[in-house]
Amino acid sequence: MDRERDLLGVDEMKYDADGLIPAVIQDAANGDVLMVAYMNRESLIETLETGKTWFWSRSRKKYWMKGESSGHTQDVHEIRYDCDADCLLVKVTQHGPGACHTNERSCFYRRLYPDPLSLAKGGSHE
Amino acid sequence: MDRERDLLGVDEMKYDADGLIPAVIQDAANGDVLMVAYMNRESLIETLETGKTWFWSRSRKKYWMKGESSGHTQDVHEIRYDCDADCLLVKVTQHGPGACHTNERSCFYRRLYPDPLSLAKGGSHE
Repeated sequence: MDRERDLLGVDEMKYDADGLIPAVIQDAANGDVLMVAYMNRESLIETLETGKTWFWSRSRKKYWMKGESSGHTQDVHEIRYDCDADCLLVKVTQHGPGACHTNERSCFYRRLYPDPLSLAKGGSHE
Repeated sequence: MDRERDLLGVDEMKYDADGLIPAVIQDAANGDVLMVAYMNRESLIETLETGKTWFWSRSRKKYWMKGESSGHTQDVHEIRYDCDADCLLVKVTQHGPGACHTNERSCFYRRLYPDPLSLAKGGSHE
């Protein structure tokens, strides 16, 4: 993961038709995936400049800093991008109980039913 | 992350206007984020039934099983979904050298330049 090459910047990322790029937010300490949200060019620059995570809310159509109301901000350690430059991976230190508005540590606190391995072993998804 | 409640299934996930839901693929062993790709309802069912990851290719407009040409398949351990049920987290065992078509272990092998912490400490992104 640490091979550094072909370094690109904010303007080389590939934003979708709405100007957005998904950002996977990962706990820098233990690798847990905390949340996925969307950035646009401006919120990515804001994230880079402040060292806190800023996103674009698709529902509210506004910028928001993670934790601006709850105080549960995220300090950014590094930002990676994928081979297509159309997705970001942001490693953070999460302040407060968690990243989720439910106060769970991770937004991914629920497991899809049923589990694939039980199905592959002959179970049914009906 | 292990609290199980309000279990939902394939039909309760929220797909976007194109019928897609992003899936973060994470190494079940060490927590590395390997790739992000898109599933639709059918590829999610295929993933559940086979225990291998299946996606919808937005560019090629077809289903594909990760590793169908390279042999670098992914065995699915569990699938989680986020608080909005509009993003999946899939924990896998990755076979072969890696998840990326470049043969890197992770698609996120590059780091965005410059680092946020250097900026927050007074650097410039120009």
